[in-house]
Amino acid sequence: MTVLAAEIRDFLISKVARTGGHIGPNLGVVELTLAMHRIFDSPSDRFLFDTGHQAYVHKIVTGRQEGFDQLKQRGGLTGYPNQAESEHDLVENCHASTALSYADGMAKAYALRGESRHVVAVVGDGALTGGMCWEALNNIAASRNRLVIIVNDNGRSYAPTIGGLADHLAALRLNPGYEKVLDLIKEALEKTPLVGKPLFEALHAVKKGIKDAVAPQALFEDLGIKYVGPVDGHDLAAMESALQRAKRYGGPVIVHAVTHKGYGYAPAEQDEADRLHAPGAFDPQTGKQLAAPSLKWTKVFADELVAIAGERPDVVGITAAMPESTGIDKLAAAYPDRAYDVGIAEQHATTSAAGLALAGLHPVVAIYATFLNRAFDQVLMDVALHKLPVTFVLDRAGITGPDGPSHYGIWDMSILGVVPGLRVAAPRDAETLRACLREAVGIDDGPTVVRFPTGSVPAALPALRRVGGVDVLAETQQKDVLFVSVGAFSHVAVQVAAELARRGYGVTVVDPRWVRPVPIELVGLASEHKLVVTIEDGVRSGGIGDAVAKLLRDNELDVPLRDLGVPVQWIDHGTRAEILAELGLTAPEITEQVTKWVSSLTTPAASELSSVTRS
Amino acid sequence: MTVLAAEIRDFLISKVARTGGHIGPNLGVVELTLAMHRIFDSPSDRFLFDTGHQAYVHKIVTGRQEGFDQLKQRGGLTGYPNQAESEHDLVENCHASTALSYADGMAKAYALRGESRHVVAVVGDGALTGGMCWEALNNIAASRNRLVIIVNDNGRSYAPTIGGLADHLAALRLNPGYEKVLDLIKEALEKTPLVGKPLFEALHAVKKGIKDAVAPQALFEDLGIKYVGPVDGHDLAAMESALQRAKRYGGPVIVHAVTHKGYGYAPAEQDEADRLHAPGAFDPQTGKQLAAPSLKWTKVFADELVAIAGERPDVVGITAAMPESTGIDKLAAAYPDRAYDVGIAEQHATTSAAGLALAGLHPVVAIYATFLNRAFDQVLMDVALHKLPVTFVLDRAGITGPDGPSHYGIWDMSILGVVPGLRVAAPRDAETLRACLREAVGIDDGPTVVRFPTGSVPAALPALRRVGGVDVLAETQQKDVLFVSVGAFSHVAVQVAAELARRGYGVTVVDPRWVRPVPIELVGLASEHKLVVTIEDGVRSGGIGDAVAKLLRDNELDVPLRDLGVPVQWIDHGTRAEILAELGLTAPEITEQVTKWVSSLTTPAASELSSVTRS
Repeated sequence: MTVLAAEIRDFLISKVARTGGHIGPNLGVVELTLAMHRIFDSPSDRFLFDTGHQAYVHKIVTGRQEGFDQLKQRGGLTGYPNQAESEHDLVENCHASTALSYADGMAKAYALRGESRHVVAVVGDGALTGGMCWEALNNIAASRNRLVIIVNDNGRSYAPTIGGLADHLAALRLNPGYEKVLDLIKEALEKTPLVGKPLFEALHAVKKGIKDAVAPQALFEDLGIKYVGPVDGHDLAAMESALQRAKRYGGPVIVHAVTHKGYGYAPAEQDEADRLHAPGAFDPQTGKQLAAPSLKWTKVFADELVAIAGERPDVVGITAAMPESTGIDKLAAAYPDRAYDVGIAEQHATTSAAGLALAGLHPVVAIYATFLNRAFDQVLMDVALHKLPVTFVLDRAGITGPDGPSHYGIWDMSILGVVPGLRVAAPRDAETLRACLREAVGIDDGPTVVRFPTGSVPAALPALRRVGGVDVLAETQQKDVLFVSVGAFSHVAVQVAAELARRGYGVTVVDPRWVRPVPIELVGLASEHKLVVTIEDGVRSGGIGDAVAKLLRDNELDVPLRDLGVPVQWIDHGTRAEILAELGLTAPEITEQVTKWVSSLTTPAASELSSVTRS
Repeated sequence: MTVLAAEIRDFLISKVARTGGHIGPNLGVVELTLAMHRIFDSPSDRFLFDTGHQAYVHKIVTGRQEGFDQLKQRGGLTGYPNQAESEHDLVENCHASTALSYADGMAKAYALRGESRHVVAVVGDGALTGGMCWEALNNIAASRNRLVIIVNDNGRSYAPTIGGLADHLAALRLNPGYEKVLDLIKEALEKTPLVGKPLFEALHAVKKGIKDAVAPQALFEDLGIKYVGPVDGHDLAAMESALQRAKRYGGPVIVHAVTHKGYGYAPAEQDEADRLHAPGAFDPQTGKQLAAPSLKWTKVFADELVAIAGERPDVVGITAAMPESTGIDKLAAAYPDRAYDVGIAEQHATTSAAGLALAGLHPVVAIYATFLNRAFDQVLMDVALHKLPVTFVLDRAGITGPDGPSHYGIWDMSILGVVPGLRVAAPRDAETLRACLREAVGIDDGPTVVRFPTGSVPAALPALRRVGGVDVLAETQQKDVLFVSVGAFSHVAVQVAAELARRGYGVTVVDPRWVRPVPIELVGLASEHKLVVTIEDGVRSGGIGDAVAKLLRDNELDVPLRDLGVPVQWIDHGTRAEILAELGLTAPEITEQVTKWVSSLTTPAASELSSVTRS
């Protein structure tokens, strides 16, 4: 088994070095996963991984070794558990802190149906900082069903885990040989002259108290969940023994496994920031990422935030356990007491930001667009209802890619459309990102959102002129099509416009920059054209296309409109380019589509496009 | 002070008996609130109530006694804290479990700004079952800022609080005179011959252990938050003393106050279901509600669910701490092991339902529409992504009323539009509610939603005929306007159609019943008319009007469309009728509006409306 574990580590490093992926977390769960498969009987017993990115070893030992050549590639192995891949997989658990809730439901159902399966959930100490885990533990304790929770405690979320819980877990971990101490004390106590009934009860309490104090598992046991541990998660025999005990126990039980993220791979173990959490392709010898450095959206934001913070002492930053990925680490480096990491807790990130704003600060909550879904109610009720000046910066907005459907940031513009008083900006390049961020932080009568995509920042695309807040990016004398482009699609829109002009159709390309609410100037612009086409990096239902259409309807302007965006469907993992091609959202395909629409409304004539990039 | 407390109780009972309101919770916090105001200095010190419905006493002692004649009436005193009413109020805290997050943010901000204010948050034991509280406690413990948390422990959410936490609080409550026992044991231990360094440390641990075991506050203290209690929350002197101690403490501290919901008012104390949580107007002598009984939407659902459960052993129910208000209590009475109350934990309600579905059951999650916002991410990621057959039943959908902006159920249809594979039904009467519920529970390849409004069920409105899944409710020979009516607006739509017919315009009124996705049959129907008008009991942005408009656009049918619904703005409390009138969503106003639109497109001619209610 030791040889097997070493082979699995070598395999993981060599494969993931080529594809990129969650190498650090998976190196930490090799023995833990092997022990699970030796003690329990998957798929009859049910395994859940929280988050699902720590399931690579599970994939290897359930027959998917071959797939790792195509890990996270279009059509290849996914980065999370996946029902379609294997009967050993149940759910993706791609957003953190969900596994215990699934497990509670499954355990209840098996109890009701009289099925004697074991449900085994692996949950990271980072995921435990999410409120869903608390809700689940509270219910698991009450329902008393058989259920094994393995706490994979590596002391880290992406970055080191924060909070009172982390301190508590650390106290458990740092407790050497408590069983020995316990014996000594018990022995001493038995010689103590305590008599009488209340004192007899007290003695029992003292014994329990000793156990709690010396091995303070009280937090879990006070909720009514049996605690086993701490166990060295890299000692296979110890893990098997602990799981065997847990398996025999008839109710809910927590096995506390202490592991090391990146275990057995020096470049990961020595990476203080995130233990090679999820790099792109890297050199297996050094752990250094291979991709050429380029200017990322995140860096533009992070640098500008630090600059703003230098001018504005009331500006503070919040991250939900992702200081590096969101760029809040730069603010923390410059102003350590003005950057807060709240754990994997988007709800708290949002409402504590409301509290900061209530007390006179202007918080900037930096978060992946997909994770804002966790805090929709808090944005609406806790921030917007009270008109509080909180700025949300949504990174990885729009189509992202290799992490699959759960990580797309395509919902924000739609769901945020229902929030009164909320303003949303979708910058198109570094310059507009900086400008929109400054505008957002300057707004003090309600919440603001600045959203931008993943990856490299495209070349600057300056405006020819502005109509109110709307940037005109390209135009012809003739006015057939008004092309309303949201955020990062501006470059595509200008390309399409150039080709349409060559084909004899007049096009005006505009970027509203602020898309919630949509600027009233679009009505006047639309009225000068025969067709309006919108394009956005978000889901079509309730998106900016719908908003522009409604704006025109509300002004009783019935010019035809067509909206392009992401359809309401699940989209498998792949690169952003592959997915956009599949959705028909490339310049050539959009050109054909718009040509078809506009040709039914008018006939072509000579046209000449003006735009800064062309001139 | 005892006299004052009694006067406040008499005042509350006499006033709230006339207006309706949260009488039970407020009778329980009279002394607690008085103690807060005596020990702390509001508004310089900051008070937060979670939930905000327990702030009536606070309103009385901050100069709003007069307002109680108009409590929760249009233009009158609101049922929650409200910045516009008083400088003593900060936030509504209308959805549970938010106050600790606000408090953490405020305490951080005051620390950063060097302001020496106290932040005092009152949180119910019920609210503590919500995951946000866990996220907040975890951060409060880590940040070590000065902050007083009063746990108002009455053992109830709306119904009795459930879960491991509730058991833990009960253990604390039931612990008589632990200080005395502690002294006895300490004394005995000091005589025990423990020597040497490890044993010296062990002795310290034993002492701490005794305290944990005898007064098991370990759960909070393990997180690093000081615990004071339990305190009798109706003993003003004891409360003041505890708050004084907490005020002096320099870090985060929990004061555990044991209170009785409905204290001092026999009809509330004797109400086992919810201690008169929030009745309508009632007889102050008996506590009996005055409103005449009528058939409620909730009852139609609850009865049909019990009937379905009798036929389908795989159907189970879930409520998030509201068994009575959602009707899940009837299922629980009929099939006690098939109804789950998960606490105020909508996230867990949703994802544990996903777990139940994974294990072969069909869960029905009954929840107020406004509270589903808390679980948007879980609906999308945990249920829909895995195509799990979970049925969500959204009660109090649409414009609700006296509880104000936070309790409207107007967002569900918009935000659910982005969820792939999710089907949403909006029944218009008892018969279609029963039918849609059965259809929903019969769908096994993905999630379903059935949403209905608050209050009484209108008369049955049978279809003249069906076009695919679309019910035709009224029609004329002449076809000018296609009126697409969602859910409970059908009666209004038929009234409008009758008047339009009298004015010479042809109208077809249709009810799609299932509105996500919108039925394709609407395209054919729309193509026969000159104008499409939609009306829905939901916010306009991204709602069903937008969806119908997009359906027509996607089929390149450019017939003019106008959509009626709730604007994206905050709407103050009032009755449903008052609010609909303010929004112009009454039959006379809609008739004028549609007449204006249609008259610009066509000229009137003789028309005769057919509908079942008219014939």
